[in-house]
Amino acid sequence: MDHSELMVKIALAGWNTQISRAAQTFDTFSDADFQQQVSRGKNRIIYLYGHLASYHDALKETLGIGKRHRPELHAPFLQNPDDLQAVMPSVAELREFWNSIHLELEQLFASLSTEDWFKRHNAMSDVDFEKDPSRNRLSVLLNRTNHVAYHLGQVKLVKPEVLS
Amino acid sequence: MDHSELMVKIALAGWNTQISRAAQTFDTFSDADFQQQVSRGKNRIIYLYGHLASYHDALKETLGIGKRHRPELHAPFLQNPDDLQAVMPSVAELREFWNSIHLELEQLFASLSTEDWFKRHNAMSDVDFEKDPSRNRLSVLLNRTNHVAYHLGQVKLVKPEVLS
Repeated sequence: MDHSELMVKIALAGWNTQISRAAQTFDTFSDADFQQQVSRGKNRIIYLYGHLASYHDALKETLGIGKRHRPELHAPFLQNPDDLQAVMPSVAELREFWNSIHLELEQLFASLSTEDWFKRHNAMSDVDFEKDPSRNRLSVLLNRTNHVAYHLGQVKLVKPEVLS
Repeated sequence: MDHSELMVKIALAGWNTQISRAAQTFDTFSDADFQQQVSRGKNRIIYLYGHLASYHDALKETLGIGKRHRPELHAPFLQNPDDLQAVMPSVAELREFWNSIHLELEQLFASLSTEDWFKRHNAMSDVDFEKDPSRNRLSVLLNRTNHVAYHLGQVKLVKPEVLS
């Protein structure tokens, strides 16, 4: 295995670790728990869940490997801060969305060659890429992995309610 | 620039981004603010600050590129959870420690060649590394970068006290 293949493997392993930790953590919460804030006056769990799922739905377009399925979720989960008045899907629906998006990404990622990962992402022009080839798909993936860790640290502050 | 060099550049850029965001965030807090918890009943800011600095002090040994300066800080910041009774350095002393550790790492990282980054880290044997060469220094760096993001997300929940 050469260095490029190794790096892709390492980057994907990092992504998978964060996503599966996040999924496991969110799964410890009941639908009712999703209304809890991660800290007083801060985002609710439902917001961060929809935020990550929507951002990863858009990630396909950023990487140029697919289309967003739920662009209408960008308003409540990406363009705006958490808002009790916002129209959001049910937690059950969001759980399905989360699972389908991450399954789809897993399959899309598996279909990319090592070379593909070193190509530019869609959010930049060819000219800019020539100037700075480090702005490739792998760097986007690493960036999104840090973003998952960032919010996971917040969600981890909340204890699921123990229902007796 | 070949793919290996690119990857090292990307991984270092990710590390630098998280470290400078974290440093900037911690710097918004007064020494008194450092006693605040990131959420009710959770770690204080001083703990997370010392936790990251101590972990990065140890990172030199994990990567096999240097020695820990303050092994005695492992007890209060790594081996044990936050504890009001723990003996901790002053915030001023911790700020110096944070700065010196990250400056030292910056210099050590700059001295490593691309090839060095693909070598095994110290926490594993040669035999294991032969089985899984993805457990190299770069993967440790990416892992620690996620760890910074994880705790940064928590610290970001706290607003510095505005002193009038």
